[in-house]
This record gives sequence, C-alpha cells and structure tokens, in this order.
Amino acid sequence: MKRRVAIIGAGGYTGVELIRLLSLHPQVELTCLTSLEDVGSPVCRVFPSLPRHLTLTLEALDVERVIAHADIVFTALPHKAAMGVVPHFLAAGKKVIDLSADFRLQDVSVYEKWYQRHTCPELVAEAAYGLPELYREKIRSARLTANPGCYPTSAVLALAPLIRHELIDLRTVIIDSKSGATGAGRSVRLGSLFCEVNEGFKAYGVGTHRHTPEIEQVLGDLAATPVTVSFTPHLLPINRGILSTTYARLQKQLDSNELAALFREFYREEPFVRVSAAGELPNVAMVKGSNYCDIGVVSDPRTARVIVVSAIDNLVKGASGQAVQNMNIMEGFAEGQGLQVVPLFP
Amino acid sequence: MKRRVAIIGAGGYTGVELIRLLSLHPQVELTCLTSLEDVGSPVCRVFPSLPRHLTLTLEALDVERVIAHADIVFTALPHKAAMGVVPHFLAAGKKVIDLSADFRLQDVSVYEKWYQRHTCPELVAEAAYGLPELYREKIRSARLTANPGCYPTSAVLALAPLIRHELIDLRTVIIDSKSGATGAGRSVRLGSLFCEVNEGFKAYGVGTHRHTPEIEQVLGDLAATPVTVSFTPHLLPINRGILSTTYARLQKQLDSNELAALFREFYREEPFVRVSAAGELPNVAMVKGSNYCDIGVVSDPRTARVIVVSAIDNLVKGASGQAVQNMNIMEGFAEGQGLQVVPLFP
Amino acid sequence: MKRRVAIIGAGGYTGVELIRLLSLHPQVELTCLTSLEDVGSPVCRVFPSLPRHLTLTLEALDVERVIAHADIVFTALPHKAAMGVVPHFLAAGKKVIDLSADFRLQDVSVYEKWYQRHTCPELVAEAAYGLPELYREKIRSARLTANPGCYPTSAVLALAPLIRHELIDLRTVIIDSKSGATGAGRSVRLGSLFCEVNEGFKAYGVGTHRHTPEIEQVLGDLAATPVTVSFTPHLLPINRGILSTTYARLQKQLDSNELAALFREFYREEPFVRVSAAGELPNVAMVKGSNYCDIGVVSDPRTARVIVVSAIDNLVKGASGQAVQNMNIMEGFAEGQGLQVVPLFP
Amino acid sequence: MKRRVAIIGAGGYTGVELIRLLSLHPQVELTCLTSLEDVGSPVCRVFPSLPRHLTLTLEALDVERVIAHADIVFTALPHKAAMGVVPHFLAAGKKVIDLSADFRLQDVSVYEKWYQRHTCPELVAEAAYGLPELYREKIRSARLTANPGCYPTSAVLALAPLIRHELIDLRTVIIDSKSGATGAGRSVRLGSLFCEVNEGFKAYGVGTHRHTPEIEQVLGDLAATPVTVSFTPHLLPINRGILSTTYARLQKQLDSNELAALFREFYREEPFVRVSAAGELPNVAMVKGSNYCDIGVVSDPRTARVIVVSAIDNLVKGASGQAVQNMNIMEGFAEGQGLQVVPLFP
Repeated sequence: MKRRVAIIGAGGYTGVELIRLLSLHPQVELTCLTSLEDVGSPVCRVFPSLPRHLTLTLEALDVERVIAHADIVFTALPHKAAMGVVPHFLAAGKKVIDLSADFRLQDVSVYEKWYQRHTCPELVAEAAYGLPELYREKIRSARLTANPGCYPTSAVLALAPLIRHELIDLRTVIIDSKSGATGAGRSVRLGSLFCEVNEGFKAYGVGTHRHTPEIEQVLGDLAATPVTVSFTPHLLPINRGILSTTYARLQKQLDSNELAALFREFYREEPFVRVSAAGELPNVAMVKGSNYCDIGVVSDPRTARVIVVSAIDNLVKGASGQAVQNMNIMEGFAEGQGLQVVPLFP
Repeated sequence: MKRRVAIIGAGGYTGVELIRLLSLHPQVELTCLTSLEDVGSPVCRVFPSLPRHLTLTLEALDVERVIAHADIVFTALPHKAAMGVVPHFLAAGKKVIDLSADFRLQDVSVYEKWYQRHTCPELVAEAAYGLPELYREKIRSARLTANPGCYPTSAVLALAPLIRHELIDLRTVIIDSKSGATGAGRSVRLGSLFCEVNEGFKAYGVGTHRHTPEIEQVLGDLAATPVTVSFTPHLLPINRGILSTTYARLQKQLDSNELAALFREFYREEPFVRVSAAGELPNVAMVKGSNYCDIGVVSDPRTARVIVVSAIDNLVKGASGQAVQNMNIMEGFAEGQGLQVVPLFP
Repeated sequence: MKRRVAIIGAGGYTGVELIRLLSLHPQVELTCLTSLEDVGSPVCRVFPSLPRHLTLTLEALDVERVIAHADIVFTALPHKAAMGVVPHFLAAGKKVIDLSADFRLQDVSVYEKWYQRHTCPELVAEAAYGLPELYREKIRSARLTANPGCYPTSAVLALAPLIRHELIDLRTVIIDSKSGATGAGRSVRLGSLFCEVNEGFKAYGVGTHRHTPEIEQVLGDLAATPVTVSFTPHLLPINRGILSTTYARLQKQLDSNELAALFREFYREEPFVRVSAAGELPNVAMVKGSNYCDIGVVSDPRTARVIVVSAIDNLVKGASGQAVQNMNIMEGFAEGQGLQVVPLFP
Repeated sequence: MKRRVAIIGAGGYTGVELIRLLSLHPQVELTCLTSLEDVGSPVCRVFPSLPRHLTLTLEALDVERVIAHADIVFTALPHKAAMGVVPHFLAAGKKVIDLSADFRLQDVSVYEKWYQRHTCPELVAEAAYGLPELYREKIRSARLTANPGCYPTSAVLALAPLIRHELIDLRTVIIDSKSGATGAGRSVRLGSLFCEVNEGFKAYGVGTHRHTPEIEQVLGDLAATPVTVSFTPHLLPINRGILSTTYARLQKQLDSNELAALFREFYREEPFVRVSAAGELPNVAMVKGSNYCDIGVVSDPRTARVIVVSAIDNLVKGASGQAVQNMNIMEGFAEGQGLQVVPLFP
C-alpha cells in the first residue's frame, strides 16, 4: 500500500518541486497540501505546470487534519514556523522531513546566535542531518530528518573527501558560491523582480550568511575539530543551480588526476554524485531538474591549492530531491525511487 | 523483450532529447547512436547531462550496422540527408520515425518547390503524418512516420477545433509564432551566439518559412479545401518553447466560454493537450520538458475574431517527445509510456 | 540659462530612465525628484547606476515646492494619480509632459470606458498627443503633452505610412506585440518575479488591453475614419524592448522594395525612425538604450498581406526618451538634444 | 581640428564598442575600420545598432592606408596578430592603443611562457600598461599603451589599496571572477551558442588562464615583490559585466568602515572608480555601458579575511572604454571625454 504524504508549505518553489517529484513516485500518494496563499485553489491551477490529474486543493494548515491523512510529512516552511509544527507531527507518530534550518544545527546555542530562540531544543539532538552521502545510517533510523541547506550541500560534498583524507589546511577554506534565483524563494520582494536580477550579478550576505555555521558544523564533524570558513553567496540570473568554487591549501602534493581518483573512490557507491574526469569541470546546466551533484577537482601546483567546483540543482539535490532521497532512506524504499530523472539540457 | 532503438543524428539538441526520453522508457533499449561529430566519444561525455550508465559511444553512420542492431530507427537528420537513408531502413523491415521535413508534405511538387528534388517520392504517400491528435489511426499501422515540424504542431493544434467545426473564415488565418533558441539547432552560426540572441527578439523568414506549406497542408486536410495562411516565426531568448498566437475571423458568434468548452470537448481523450480555463492563457514555462500542448482561446467581440494561444516545448511535443509518442502508437505501447514527465517549473 | 526640471514619480523604471537622459542634457537641470518610496534617500543610492554627482534626494510630492523649483514637469505617475496633479502645474504656468494615459484619449467617454471617471476633461482637448512624427506642430505650442503609450508608439509608427497612403483594408489590422519586463514597471508583484518571467513567454490582456483605444484613436485620426484593431500584448523575458508584428490586407499590389521605399520617404526627415533595407528586419537588441524606432516591411504576395515589424526600446522611444523629445520640441531645443545615444549592442 | 582614428579589428564586440564610444567623442573622427570579415559592408549594416550617419565601410587591413588616414590607431586584434602590425604604426609616428595581450607583460619570458614567441620584444619596455589609476603618468607620455585585460582590470582595482597599504598577506590572495559572455568575443564556437550558455554557469581555465601572469605582474609591482595568486574565471549567462570576488588574509585588524574609508581615500581623485558605502556591494547591472568600476569591501572578523567585490562592464572599463580613457590621457584631452555615460539600468 502506498504511504500517504503531506506537504506543509506547498505554495513555494520548494513545494511545487516536491509535488513534481512525489507525484511520479510509485510508493507514495500525495494526500494533503497546505499553504498560506491560494487556499482553496486546486494546486494545478496555482501551478499550471502540474498535471490535471493532480486534483488536490491547497488548504490552510490544520495539524489534526494532516495527522489524520498522512504518514509522512514534508515541512517546507521558513525557519521558526517549522519548529512550531514539527513536534506535533512527531508526537503523532509521523515521520518528518523538515526543509527549514530549524533542526540542522546540533548546537542550539549556535542556532540561537544565527537565527532566534529555539522552542524545542530536545528534538535537535535526535534529528538526523539529511545528507545521505555522510549520514545515511542515522537517517535510516530517524523519525526527523533535517534536510540540508542548498549551499551547504554543494559546499560539503565538494570538500568532504579532502577533509576526510586530511589533505588540506583547514584554516584556508574559502567557498565562493553562486545560486540561481529560485534560491530566494517565491516571496514577492523588489530584489527578486525580473528586471532587478536579469543581466545582473552580485554578492550578498558576505561574512554573514546563515548557511555558514551549517557548513562549519558538517566540515568540523568530518575533521573532528572546529572549522571556520569564508563563505560568499552570489545571485545568478538563472532559475536553478548552485555552483560552488572552493579553495584550500593542499597539505600533500597531489595532482589533478590523483585528486579526481580519490574523489571517485570516495563517492564510488553514491548514486547521485558524479565526479568529472580530470580536466573537466561541472556546469549547473548539466544537472538541471536532477538530483545529481557534479564535482570537478583541480590541483594548482603554482599556488599549492586545490580548487573544487561542485554543481547542483538547488531545488533538487539542494532541497526537494534530497528530501525525497531522505524519505526513501527513512522508509526503506530504493534510494533512487522517484529521482531517476535525466537532467534537462538544454 | 525490449525493442532495440537507434538514433541517427544523436549529436544535436533533438538527439540528446530523444536520448533523455528513451533512456527512461521501459520498453526500449538504446543500441546505436550515430553522429557526424564527436565520433568515438561516449555520449555521456559529449552531453554531461546524461547519466553515466549510458555507456554508448557516438559512431559514424553505418547503415548495415544500424540495421543489424535496431528494430526502430529515429532519424534526426536535416532534410535531404534523411531521405538518403530512410529507404534503406524501411527496406530492411525497420520502423522509422523521421524528424526531418522529407516525408511530411504529401504533395511532392510542393516539397520540391519549398525544399529540393525528392529522391524517393514513392515513400511519401505511405508515410503517416505524425500528429497523433489528428492522424492516430494512420500512424498505428505505419512503417514510416513523418514527425511534424515544431511550428506546425503548435499552430495546427491551436486551429484544428475551429476548422473542424467550420467556425472561422479560412482566408483570415494569421499565425504569429515565437520559438526558443533550441529551434535553430546546435549548429555553430553567428546568429545563434549567446550575445546575438540574449536580450534580443526578432522576426525572421517572414512569408517564406518552410513550415508554411506544412501548416497549410494539415489545415487544408481538416477543411477539405485549400487553406492559405500568414505565418511569422520569431526568435525568443529562451532555450525551449514555442508560443503561437493565431487569429481568425469567427463565422459564428461564440464567446470565450463556449469556445473553451468546444476545445475541451475536441481534445477530451487527448493525454497531451490541456485546454486552459476561459480567461487563462498558456505560458511556455508551464510545459517545459514535457509533451504537453497547452491551449487558451479568446473570443473578441469587438473585432469578431478568435485568438488562440498554444504553448509547447519545441524539443518535446515539437520534436522528440512527439516522436516517442508516435513510436508508442506504432509499436502498440501505452501512448504515454516514457512521457509521464511533469513540466519543470520554474 | 538652464531650464529647471522636476520628475514626479522618479522611483520607477521610467523615472530612472528620465534621470539618465536628462542628467546628460545640456540645456536642463534636474532640481526636484519626487517618489512615494525611498523618500529622503539620495537618488544615486536608490539607483546605484546613477553617477555620484547627482546629489538630489527623493522627496515626497509637494506641489508648491515643485512649482517653486521647476519650469518643466515630467509626471511619471500611474493614470488617475497624474490627472490629480497636472492641473496644478499648468495653472502655475509650468509646461508638463505627462507619461500616464490620462490625457492621451481625446474622447473622454472612451477614456472613462477603459479607465475611470476623468476629473479634468477640459484639459484633454488642449493636450497634444506626443508622437512627434505625427503631431509635431501641435506639440510645439502645447503646455501639456500626453506622452504616448509604449505599445501605441510601436504600432502606430509601423502602420502610419500604410494608412496615410490608403494602402490597406482597415478592417484587417492585427497587431501582435511583445514587450520586455520593464513594461510592467517596478512594482512588486508575483508575476514580475525573475523566476516567473525568465525562460517563459505568454500573451496577456488579449482583447482587453488599455492601449487598444489609444492605438485606434491615432490610426482613426490618420484614416479620418474609425478603425478597430486586434491588439495582443505578450511578455518577453528581456529587460527592454517592444517588437510589434503588424498585419493587414493590402489594397494595392506593392512588393517589399516598393513598400520600403514608401516607408523611407514617409520618415525621410525623422531623426529617430530607421527603415530597414528590403529583406532586413529589426531586432529589439539594436535599439537598446536609444530613442530609435526601427521598422522593416514585407509584402507577402501569397496572402496579399503586408507585414510590418517595428522595434523600440520601451523605456526610451516608448516612454522617457520620447518625453525628452517632446520637451525639446516644446522648448524649442534641438529635437535630438540629450538623445544622441548609440544603442548598446550587445 | 579633430584627430583621425582607425580601428583595426572593428568587427568584434570590442570593435563595435569602440565605435559606439568614439562616434560620440567630440575630439576625434573615425576614418578607418578594418576587419577580416564583412569587408566591403557598411559598418552600420554589419551592426544595425550603429547610427546611419556612420557611413564608413569595413575594409581589409592595409597598413599603408591606415597610416595615411589616421593619427591614432586602436588595435583590437587577437594576441600575436597585434604585434604583427603595431610596430608599423609606431614607426610611422602614430599613437597606438593595443587591446591585445602582446604588450602587457613586461617580462618577455613570462609572455613567451603563457603565449608564444614575441616578435618585437624591444617595444615591450616602452609600452605603458594602460590602467590609468596606477600608471597615468607613464601613459601620458606613451606612444604605445597596452590596454589591460578585462579580468586584470577588475582584480587589480579591487586589490590595489590593500597592497599599497601593506594590509594583506600576499600569499593568501584568491580572485574568483565571473564574466559575461561578450568576454569570449564574437567568434563562432559551440561553447558560445545561446543554448550552451543560457541557464548555465561554469568555471573554466582553472589555474591556467592567461590573465593570471598579468594580474601577478601588476600586484607584484604594487607590492614591490613577486606575488602569486589563485585566479578562477567563470562564464556568466549575461552579455556584459565582470564581478570579481577577491579574498586575502588581513595583516591588521580593520573593520568594514575603516576599509571603505581607506578605499575611498585611495580612489579620491579617480573619475571612474566608485567605492560603495560600507554594507553595500556592487552589482554588474549598475555599471552596464559605462566606464565605472564599482568596489565594495567587507572585513570578516571571524576569518580575519578581507573580501573585496568589484564590478565593471568588461567591454567598457574592461576594454574599449578604458582604451578611450587611455587615448584621452595620451592626447591631453579631458580624461572623461566621450565616457560621460550613465549606466543603463535596467
């Protein structure tokens, strides 16, 4: 029998992407979509991209109704709003994949420094950090998975092999990331207007972006020692995609071929990580619509630095696709179920 | 057992789109990909979007080899080149879906006026015109299907209900179409450079585009009398999508609701045509990556005209997706097999 | 001595474009910029594109202050708001160039049908319609010029020579227009978000757009008889530019060369209209940032139709540039003063 | 009397940008435009953006003819081709602004390592490096100015104040640059097609881009000691603009306000450098079409790093505009002559 799934916050870009992926997933059935806006409208009218046989209507969030109709709950809410509802779903025995930041930071004091007061710190410890490539076992048995941020996914997958193998000077890590405009969500803001973004490019949140502590937590976990990084996000005039260019000083002299081999070995069993051949570099256009993370690595002997470039679709591997991957792991489904998408190029 | 499929001309945008769709089709297996360029390269290296498990290599066209390894052949070649190879595949008992213009025009003299001399006119009569919404029965029993042009698909689906129901003055049909840049193919030309297309918009081939006689043939077929239309293509600075805005004088006074109802009825059984609710109009963004044709219709009492707007993804319903749909019909597969894609929005 | 200029509504795209053009105009000095938003902010901080030596600050609209500090007033307000303030400036002896729709429609009842009640109908008759190519003499002596809509400018310039020369059947005029996203202004709306516009294309306001009566008024004026047209606007995923493709039945058989010659003759003295050589068609990319209107004309003997394609920058010839041109005419400056811009390509 | 100017290589994007700027320059007259392609065509037909009164025709390069008709020569040729013709113009007493890389690198052995054999090394020493902000005096008396590369312009202006004031650890400099597609020029290549660039983003030439030694030369000059940097270029899906994000370890604790003040002081007299207020960061959209370089600087106490973000229009300050600025200096014209352009936003 199919598992019943609810999406809380189905009216945003992450929401419609969850619907796109889950509507084709053979082992689940969408039963409940909530939203703050367009309540009462058929979801296929709000998003005319969706097929007509998706006859669900957006509804206001009614926790009891969700509990009655769903086995699995995806919460695609802003931080703070998420921790207001997640405890109820867990208490009712539901499995929850939370796409907000509320359960990602294991150290509540760090969370409270970068966000605000946490209202259910007791759940933080039990939440699995939903990056399957690093935390698959914990996810497998989790009731609550904290789906990673889009930037952290791209940065951590780029750096993990280097840190695990103790190849880099941890004080020299710089992450220069560029994200498509869906990363800013569907809320209506001057800075998100077409004419403000198109033919433009800028950095933002330099030194202050909230994904910084999340990246540092996972890298620190890998290194078994605290890590501090420079992280600079930029806004790209495209719909989808994050490309992260990461820099670090190599502690050991390895050439690009050796590094590529090492990355390939590290991700050998991973269905969604593709390591480029030496000399090739990823392009966000090549992962569009898919759950892939493409990674290219270059050793630069002139500077003794390694440069790793990673590309994901921020709405898929950076959000909804990874959430489905986590659901698959939590439910014991085949991990790639519903995610066998060939990227749309061009 | 899976049917074995070859793609002749796999190195273009239509080719990679066929690969994308067919690689997920449960009843076929790709066995042979030919190309003029990149011969000897793994196709997943030429198009890094493709999954690594697609281990096929692009090869030079060797007709005998194709015949030995494939049951079904997609020819994604320029016109003229197509009619040079199609007869060989048919003679060897293969089924052929031809994406060129070579077998679309039933009147060879019209073909020869707009293109060049036809080298196998005897095959033209037997070829089915591969627009399933109008010619499904003929396609079902065809050995050779001429896959429609992208513009004709969008224009014909917009106008068919009006002509079948004799609602418009056939002397007043104007088709104003706008296509994304993949429509120009992957050949390397100054006019296709990013900086020549981006932030620009223009008409081209006014009064002379070769899709004109194709549109007129099908509309004439529907009307059972010759039809002459104005057709103006334009180049949009987007990757995918054709939007056609069509105009005609109404012979009978019908309002937008009545027209929408009539269109819905006309396409009631069609899995890939979606008629918009009255008052709503399609957007190419809502069909991206899918085989849908979205259609909106407006009655304008001020001018006694009907305006129909249709949207397709030119690479899917306008080319490769429709080709797969035709294969499904020719092979007796479920018509939507391999095409159950939710459009990628945004 | 320089004339002092105020811009009412300086915070939108039309406003910043007026500032761009007027700040380089040798015969005027900007003295007053009003806005609803960002009041109190230096305009070069609100629009960091503007040079630092532009030290003006956005202020709330204070009619008396404007009157005290300006000789010429540009009102770049929404319709209705404009007619609330224009009478005051005129009464104080100022010259006004109004970029709203409030004074464009000479028949107040038509205005009231498409917009709302008019509060100063007595000013409508005296307002000059600011399309210099057709109404230069009236503009020269006007106190109030109604700057044309962007779509009407592109459509009227395309059709004027044909109508003046009585070459077309007036019942067959169809105008299919495509506009860049600045046409929707800078207000913050879901439909104007980058991800809602980018990689998309759609028609809107089919049969109901408010520029329709404006186009019909000017064409009727040229024809000396009422004209009814079909007008369909579309939204292009670019910042700037309108391309209009217009269709009409020819009453007289003329080929493309003859039509081009006739257009060239018609616009012989016009500094801002460029007629393409026969066989060439305009592209909005070629007028970007400039006050040009490029026009190409094709005769299609198959259908006995003429197709005229025109391209403007909607913010320049379609709004602020034409407003400056009108000011130049009203003030007796050289008509091209401040408008000698070479289009920015690419 | 106006100085007569020739452009060698007028058929590319840099060429048409030179024409755009010089055609409005009051002290010069374009007399000769050479090109490899479109020889014999009026330049305003090759680039329909250009005004019709520009009646020059593209001609094949004839050195003697250029010498006879021009006082100043802009060479907008690929490297290697440039050093083939520059000596002739100098020998004939012309002033030359060379936009290629051939005379930028003062150390011929470095040039020969990154490019190829140099055929006129004797001219290298006398060439001025055309970055006015750092080398104005040498440019003033130069016969030959080597116009800087686009990336070096953006990187050097971002880092110069920090290096001059000895504020950073020179071993830690990382330059992550992103360029619009005009940077790849107008040559017809698969990788420059609209559909290969649009909705994509990638790094290229990691560790190997030829602008690296140029950046290092100028930074080393400022530091009076050799400097080695990491430089990573990326391709942005926009027409114009380079944004460089540069990182270095601070040697002295300064906050963002102090750094901004220091940058403002450093560039106090510079007409084309705009330092952002603390807390604000540049966007390439705000310099489009202009000769400005906008710079924002952030101190990150968490990492003890400084991050500087600079934005230029690669075709203007990164190429043709800076070339005009250099001509102005060499000829004793006002430095901003012909460059008083307000950026085109949006």
